[in-house]
Amino acid sequence: MEIRHLYESQQLTPRRLSALMTRADELKELSRKGPRNLPQTLDRYIMASLFYEPSTRTRFSHEAAMIRLGGEVIGTENAAQFSSAKKGESLADTVRVMGRQGGLLGYEDIVVVRHTEEGEIKKASEVSSIPIINAGDGPGQHPTQALLDVYTLQSEFGKIEGLNVAMVGDLKNGRTVKSLCYLLGKFNDINITFVSPDWLAMSPNIKAYLKRHEINYRETAEFEDVLQSHDAIYMTRIQREREQGISDEEFQRAEDMFAITKDNLPLVPSESRILHPLPHLHELQIPYEAEETDRRIAYFRQANNGLYARMALLEWSLMQGPFEK
Amino acid sequence: MEIRHLYESQQLTPRRLSALMTRADELKELSRKGPRNLPQTLDRYIMASLFYEPSTRTRFSHEAAMIRLGGEVIGTENAAQFSSAKKGESLADTVRVMGRQGGLLGYEDIVVVRHTEEGEIKKASEVSSIPIINAGDGPGQHPTQALLDVYTLQSEFGKIEGLNVAMVGDLKNGRTVKSLCYLLGKFNDINITFVSPDWLAMSPNIKAYLKRHEINYRETAEFEDVLQSHDAIYMTRIQREREQGISDEEFQRAEDMFAITKDNLPLVPSESRILHPLPHLHELQIPYEAEETDRRIAYFRQANNGLYARMALLEWSLMQGPFEK
Amino acid sequence: MEIRHLYESQQLTPRRLSALMTRADELKELSRKGPRNLPQTLDRYIMASLFYEPSTRTRFSHEAAMIRLGGEVIGTENAAQFSSAKKGESLADTVRVMGRQGGLLGYEDIVVVRHTEEGEIKKASEVSSIPIINAGDGPGQHPTQALLDVYTLQSEFGKIEGLNVAMVGDLKNGRTVKSLCYLLGKFNDINITFVSPDWLAMSPNIKAYLKRHEINYRETAEFEDVLQSHDAIYMTRIQREREQGISDEEFQRAEDMFAITKDNLPLVPSESRILHPLPHLHELQIPYEAEETDRRIAYFRQANNGLYARMALLEWSLMQGPFEK
Repeated sequence: MEIRHLYESQQLTPRRLSALMTRADELKELSRKGPRNLPQTLDRYIMASLFYEPSTRTRFSHEAAMIRLGGEVIGTENAAQFSSAKKGESLADTVRVMGRQGGLLGYEDIVVVRHTEEGEIKKASEVSSIPIINAGDGPGQHPTQALLDVYTLQSEFGKIEGLNVAMVGDLKNGRTVKSLCYLLGKFNDINITFVSPDWLAMSPNIKAYLKRHEINYRETAEFEDVLQSHDAIYMTRIQREREQGISDEEFQRAEDMFAITKDNLPLVPSESRILHPLPHLHELQIPYEAEETDRRIAYFRQANNGLYARMALLEWSLMQGPFEK
Repeated sequence: MEIRHLYESQQLTPRRLSALMTRADELKELSRKGPRNLPQTLDRYIMASLFYEPSTRTRFSHEAAMIRLGGEVIGTENAAQFSSAKKGESLADTVRVMGRQGGLLGYEDIVVVRHTEEGEIKKASEVSSIPIINAGDGPGQHPTQALLDVYTLQSEFGKIEGLNVAMVGDLKNGRTVKSLCYLLGKFNDINITFVSPDWLAMSPNIKAYLKRHEINYRETAEFEDVLQSHDAIYMTRIQREREQGISDEEFQRAEDMFAITKDNLPLVPSESRILHPLPHLHELQIPYEAEETDRRIAYFRQANNGLYARMALLEWSLMQGPFEK
Repeated sequence: MEIRHLYESQQLTPRRLSALMTRADELKELSRKGPRNLPQTLDRYIMASLFYEPSTRTRFSHEAAMIRLGGEVIGTENAAQFSSAKKGESLADTVRVMGRQGGLLGYEDIVVVRHTEEGEIKKASEVSSIPIINAGDGPGQHPTQALLDVYTLQSEFGKIEGLNVAMVGDLKNGRTVKSLCYLLGKFNDINITFVSPDWLAMSPNIKAYLKRHEINYRETAEFEDVLQSHDAIYMTRIQREREQGISDEEFQRAEDMFAITKDNLPLVPSESRILHPLPHLHELQIPYEAEETDRRIAYFRQANNGLYARMALLEWSLMQGPFEK
């Protein structure tokens, strides 16, 4: 029996994505009547939540998805400093111990990992007896974020194909935009616009991937034009902590240049949507009132979609497919 | 529908307090037959436990209250260092993401927060779609502690009105005594005695509040007199970490001066009660034997009351009042 | 009613051990049909998981044991730095607050502790109203590890008496080998061989204990001989962090000298077993293929046994003996 890992967004085929989004929609509808209306499909399953890097939002979202479907969680929010990582054990060995042994249950039934090293999670999945979900691996990928991002596009526009998507900010270090590109590469008739300072441009290997998949993309720094002409504007935070040798002034200039504020927000058409993986800083300076009432602001709905997309993903990994039989 | 936050003890009216204490008493009685005898009123609800400052006791007490009534917990014990707080996000934004979106369930259904900044929790409650409970906000308040303190007075004396209460130790930095004063201000015929070194005296705005609410208070350093003449003696730890420019000798002198030891314990009348929010250090030097058998020592019962008071509070916040309909 | 603590492995009599291992075997068999086939004997009980020192494996194993039997967990993975330990409270006082008060339920029903100070856990057990399990106390003991180690010997060999056991590596600082010696001391006809550099030799008081219990032991540095002539070879990691004044070269030499590699693995007879408390480093350099298929490699089964041994232990502590009446 195949073990259903998710280590990179390329694994999500349009067919699988479609099944996951359909299930997410079902669960979303059930949730309207409160937490007791959700099916307890993951009852008695245990998820290990291994975070080698901090993340409240991503961790809480996965844990809530597990718990709302009846599952249990055992976690560490500081795996790097306090776990046996300190003693030099590889993630692969950590996961081997946690998983099944022969026909016997292990400590956990599924593992969600955020790691500092690109590729470590994929490597661990090769030896793991239970499914591993990548919740971000250093400068690598963040495939569950890509899943919820595409689910948000589907929810907001009723389709994915044919959309014009702008990605703005730190395209060099952002694993969310990287994973989103890999996923959008699987759809037809997508146009992508990359908007960033030169020194934070999208990496050549992603651009090569898009070319191979016949996705149109272009690069520009004309932010105001972009705001007026895209279905989705995917904003990201400039990750100062990942860049060396850039002055504070230069950071500041880039942050000011690629920010949505109350001044340029009116440029965005009413049918367009502003997305952001959150947490946001200077790149979004939108008044509270607008955030609460303006339909163009989609990022809180997007974060909420993460809960339902991850519910569907956990079911798919753990149950070998109630909706795929 | 009103969202039932608790950010400061002034929100707890005598009528609401009375309902909470009655419910806490019911739950306490049910608990005598073991954990399986408690009603699972919070089944399927999820509490976020966000601690930006360390606290095992307060955190465990809230989490146990939630779990004993059937609820679930997702938490971080180090929100400040490891959560997206590092990336500069406000508590308000953190909580907005966690809460409900439109009619949809969010990651959690209620949030318990300990924060480093006074007022941040109240601010977050203004934008939150789910209830927020203040578990201590820097030098600000600690209203659930005040709730359990008053509940302890009620349990030990059968009443709150008419009591003489001494508060001893670090009155300047102690948020528990501050919150307790705000709460006692709502009752009649209370006498408060503040006992501390000058440099740790109760703040003027609390004294002004008490005056407005016609609560008698006085200040003294005559600790032995106080021990002999009060119903409740509320001891607190001197928070060295919050005071600059005080010598070790001066700290030591204050700690020795305002401590209950086996020598002055006999001064306390048999109907009086010694309270303490715990953990205690030098200010309580009472032999283990006495702690276990002497009815005057109320602080372990007080800590235990926290469990039941918080159960009642969580029910009130989450269930919109099974006992208030 | 006796409170069933486990603070040192000497408390585990052969009769009690045998009952625990029988129950572990039952639970193991039940687990073959998945997590929903396990009895929910610990339903509604809460375990406090207090880790003053890092340990993912031991913590996860205890927490999984609790949860797989229907129990709940409230934990801290960094008790030393973030709990009220910082404010100077003793473990004994921490545990007193958590436990029962009079006939009333406390925050938790059982406490699992890993502590930095030898003896602190035993001290806390003397005042605790709920059971305490020692999950490692500094250079002291690790009795649940000894329990699972002996359970592994029983599972692999069908018996414990009559076995020749080699313990290899850091015998001075390793609490697992110490606890295992105390436990093996209760059985007949055991032969123990200690293999280590001089400066990491087994401590005299353990050797004295073995003498008193008429256990044969000897010390040697002839690792190759040992590999060829023992039923069980119990490998341990050299704990560099616990030794001062040893050069890197000396550490390296010791690690090379007492390591199992693909070169000396063939010396181990086919009926012998290699154990290790994990995580492992240089002392085990066995190819992945062999680890997966070679029956002599027992350490992943050993780690898995920890889950079932701890389930049986938690039941015994919490339920006052479903299998001992």
